[in-house]
Amino acid sequence: MKVKIKSPGTVANLVCGFDILGLALKAPYDIMEFEIIDQPGVVIENRDAFNLPTEPEKNVAGVVLLAAIEKAGFNKGIRVTIEKHIKPGSGLGSSAASAAGAAVGANILLGDIFSTDDLVQLAMIGEKLATGVKHADNITPCILGGITLIRSIHPLDIVPIASPDLFVTVVHPQIEVRTADARQILRKQVYLKDAIKQWGNIAGLVAGFMTNDRGLIGRSLEDVIIEPVRSILIPAFDEVKAKCKEAGALGGGISGSGPSIFMLSENEATAQMVGDIMKKVYDSIGIENYVYVTTIAKNGVERVSE
Amino acid sequence: MKVKIKSPGTVANLVCGFDILGLALKAPYDIMEFEIIDQPGVVIENRDAFNLPTEPEKNVAGVVLLAAIEKAGFNKGIRVTIEKHIKPGSGLGSSAASAAGAAVGANILLGDIFSTDDLVQLAMIGEKLATGVKHADNITPCILGGITLIRSIHPLDIVPIASPDLFVTVVHPQIEVRTADARQILRKQVYLKDAIKQWGNIAGLVAGFMTNDRGLIGRSLEDVIIEPVRSILIPAFDEVKAKCKEAGALGGGISGSGPSIFMLSENEATAQMVGDIMKKVYDSIGIENYVYVTTIAKNGVERVSE
Repeated sequence: MKVKIKSPGTVANLVCGFDILGLALKAPYDIMEFEIIDQPGVVIENRDAFNLPTEPEKNVAGVVLLAAIEKAGFNKGIRVTIEKHIKPGSGLGSSAASAAGAAVGANILLGDIFSTDDLVQLAMIGEKLATGVKHADNITPCILGGITLIRSIHPLDIVPIASPDLFVTVVHPQIEVRTADARQILRKQVYLKDAIKQWGNIAGLVAGFMTNDRGLIGRSLEDVIIEPVRSILIPAFDEVKAKCKEAGALGGGISGSGPSIFMLSENEATAQMVGDIMKKVYDSIGIENYVYVTTIAKNGVERVSE
Repeated sequence: MKVKIKSPGTVANLVCGFDILGLALKAPYDIMEFEIIDQPGVVIENRDAFNLPTEPEKNVAGVVLLAAIEKAGFNKGIRVTIEKHIKPGSGLGSSAASAAGAAVGANILLGDIFSTDDLVQLAMIGEKLATGVKHADNITPCILGGITLIRSIHPLDIVPIASPDLFVTVVHPQIEVRTADARQILRKQVYLKDAIKQWGNIAGLVAGFMTNDRGLIGRSLEDVIIEPVRSILIPAFDEVKAKCKEAGALGGGISGSGPSIFMLSENEATAQMVGDIMKKVYDSIGIENYVYVTTIAKNGVERVSE
């Protein structure tokens, strides 16, 4: 049996939802193909140009598959072929796509034996290898699709947030922002008054999504704590954001820890216009860039026909 | 024309929703009666034992009525009779009930000329007199009923949060906690990791209320920032909270800036048991106390027949 899945890119740190809120993208996504092999262990074949490691212990999908095999007490091995389209370091959940894809792929091969919490826990092993931290804010939307809240990570408490059909425009400027740097420049303490503003916004954003109140979503897409610090690492961030909102985007911000920037829009025409603006800004300052005009993906990792 | 209204007590600073989330109580409530009088200005008669000022400029309801008269360009006066049941200093929104009641009462007398935002703005003038701060977290649920989010105060952005029919138990131990003291002991800065936990909880709480997920509501009723500091001012706080949750309460915390403590429960039997526990704890340490077993009020200030 061969199992082919697609594993979507994700936007974590959703503006005021730093560390807790993320969404799945319809595009880009990775393609992964799994099959059971007789010899124990994991065999990895990369079908892309990113030169990711093929030793299972050093590969994000590899460590997840090893952990899944061990957890299941499985006495054979798994072979995986990975065709990655989500560029590592983009801030679009590239490692989470590998990790979540591996967890879900293994689960299908092994006969649907893991719970959602199991899948998230397994995939976090991959995120730990990639980023040094066991975080779930990309993994959860990647597995479940839609918009997801991680209320707590210890113990794991995942809450799917119903959301309207919104369009997402993403620009990935080809500069490097290391997650470690992005984390290091954050202050360990924040002003209580800013924290209050932030939790007013996150409460408003959740209510806005759940009641499909576009105005409220737009007003709540404001981050007074992380964005002012991290946006410094992303050239032209303020210009991009201001121009996109002027063009009708509801709002947006840094995707993950950057450098990608995302914007939510109510309709495709606006999302397309927002994409053109993003492209124009980065072209004008000579920074190579990729733009995706897509939607929130209703489904997370899903099996596709071969 | 005489207009008689009842104006409910409220719980502000709803656990993880410090400064942004509040709810209206079915009891206790104040009774206020308004009528137009020929001489301009405001005349106040108190029908309770709290000895609140009767000079309009020094009375919470008085300043709101004066402001309403001025805003309306009204050339007569208003006489108000106040029968207060919400004890000042209880942490149950006593001043907000006066302020919101006055705003709504005046609005009915003057022919329904004010918007909800106008009413909140007018009532905040009363809160400013009472507490020195123009805050709306008691006023908003008092006027609208139910559970309300104040996403932002400048500009005012009020979001009603749909909620299940929950029971509320409140204990008011007869000790004094001055709002100014309660505010002063808060640290101006908080740890980012605590703030993240708090905004995970507020997001979970809003989602829990809106989807009627009692388990999620319970898990989200956690305050890692304000309660650990303020609860020091309330004798036996930890004991009350622990025992109430053990008895089946979903959770709860300090009401407003205290000293009242509130607990949410799924059914009346639990709410009643919780009330008995609260009473027993304070009786056992010799602190006089009042207990209310009530529900979230669907309506805020409302007109009643005379």
